[in-house]
Amino acid sequence: MQHIQSASVMQTFVLAARREGKRIGAVPTMGYLHDGHASLVRMARAESDIVITTIFVNPLQFAPNEDFTRYPRDFERDWSIAEKAGCDVLFTPSPEEMYPQGFQTNISIGGVSAPFEGVFRPTHFDGVATVVAKLFLLTQPDKAFFGQKDYQQCMVVKKLVRDLAIPLEIVVCPTQRENDGLAMSSRNVYLSAEDRIKSTILWKSLQAAQNLIQQGERHRDRIETILKETLLTMNGLTIDYAAAADADTLEQPTEFAPTQGIVLLLAVRLGATRLIDNLVVR
Amino acid sequence: MQHIQSASVMQTFVLAARREGKRIGAVPTMGYLHDGHASLVRMARAESDIVITTIFVNPLQFAPNEDFTRYPRDFERDWSIAEKAGCDVLFTPSPEEMYPQGFQTNISIGGVSAPFEGVFRPTHFDGVATVVAKLFLLTQPDKAFFGQKDYQQCMVVKKLVRDLAIPLEIVVCPTQRENDGLAMSSRNVYLSAEDRIKSTILWKSLQAAQNLIQQGERHRDRIETILKETLLTMNGLTIDYAAAADADTLEQPTEFAPTQGIVLLLAVRLGATRLIDNLVVR
Repeated sequence: MQHIQSASVMQTFVLAARREGKRIGAVPTMGYLHDGHASLVRMARAESDIVITTIFVNPLQFAPNEDFTRYPRDFERDWSIAEKAGCDVLFTPSPEEMYPQGFQTNISIGGVSAPFEGVFRPTHFDGVATVVAKLFLLTQPDKAFFGQKDYQQCMVVKKLVRDLAIPLEIVVCPTQRENDGLAMSSRNVYLSAEDRIKSTILWKSLQAAQNLIQQGERHRDRIETILKETLLTMNGLTIDYAAAADADTLEQPTEFAPTQGIVLLLAVRLGATRLIDNLVVR
Repeated sequence: MQHIQSASVMQTFVLAARREGKRIGAVPTMGYLHDGHASLVRMARAESDIVITTIFVNPLQFAPNEDFTRYPRDFERDWSIAEKAGCDVLFTPSPEEMYPQGFQTNISIGGVSAPFEGVFRPTHFDGVATVVAKLFLLTQPDKAFFGQKDYQQCMVVKKLVRDLAIPLEIVVCPTQRENDGLAMSSRNVYLSAEDRIKSTILWKSLQAAQNLIQQGERHRDRIETILKETLLTMNGLTIDYAAAADADTLEQPTEFAPTQGIVLLLAVRLGATRLIDNLVVR
């Protein structure tokens, strides 16, 4: 596996590879890789000639009060996980490499950025869209692989790609879960032993709401009520949002149509740790 | 010369051309082509295997009170001018093709967008940055050619390219002028016969300020005074701005350093017509 840290070296490498007709797969991450990331790399491996995993903890997508500085980092473990999953190039630019002196560009995506995460992290998706656009230009992938765990982020990135006609395909891969259902996330390492046990309530509440929908329930308030009631059986948990929305547009009708795909979206806090999860029911 | 109107056809065409190693030159325009545009196409011709001229009157860069609907259009004349100048592909997407239903992306460039045009046309450069980014992704040029007449626009586009690492080179070409010095512009067609005569004062004021600088004047207020005093010898002319700034940063020091490049920037109104011009003195 090759290690590239320079943006211009990365871009020169992929432009040459594209001229040779190589299919490039990119897996943009913030590092501290887990089996969810590994599944993305394996998927990229299966569909690409060259697999690039990017590791960049993007300061633009963290608000000042968020966990940018304490976000977990472990380069050697990341190297080993990426290599075992079949990665060819690990691209780890520094913040100065991505945002050199005088960087002044911001990309914002209206609509799908606004609700849910957009309410609680108002600058987050601008930071995501800006860094992802730049990572796409630096790595020139034919396909880029994202985890469904960040459901709204996947929608923002798809919108970015469609609106600007970035010539690549976004592949959304299934959320990987621990045995007890907790969605894999680099932030799970923040959880105390007690909160780790409590965290299983996210998956339980998603499943409870899924059951209700599968029994025929289409009223949004009733679906959201079971999400919230299940979550709040756990002491010390705060809900940022627990919502049901159209799986394709994130619109929130009073009642879903019988054939309408529904995404259940959660963001909760356990102690100082913020967890998100989601489930699509079609 | 080929005519392409579909964004996806355009992109498929250039991606194939790039795989064959062809060097692509793009000339983004709003049409109603004049000798200034023709000089850009000729420059592109000299430095490219495939020359693409884009014609798109971009609604995003016009404010509601501006001249979007009456902006001059003449496809047949544009075709003839582009073809004679050596263009291979005329790309004329519709607004629906560039901004399909649900388009929600906005790119903004801080800093160089803020002064001058940014004060009088606050949403203008967001519209420029957004459309230019998309046109670059659709035409995938190695080099893109812009006229110096839109000086601040050139700086915004260069910043966009540098910040996002778009893999191309921006070539800024000299302003083409009528015999009496008026900078060529599609908007000159708006001028009444009387205002057309008055419009020569822009170039005269730029030259007067250039003479002053070449005689050693480095105080910004004195340079700007001669610009304004010269302009205001003409009745019925309103000044939006008449300014001297650092040619590389657009900063406006009280006094310029002896070796500092200076750009003289004008925007004036003659009747309902707004004209801009500039001159760099190094």
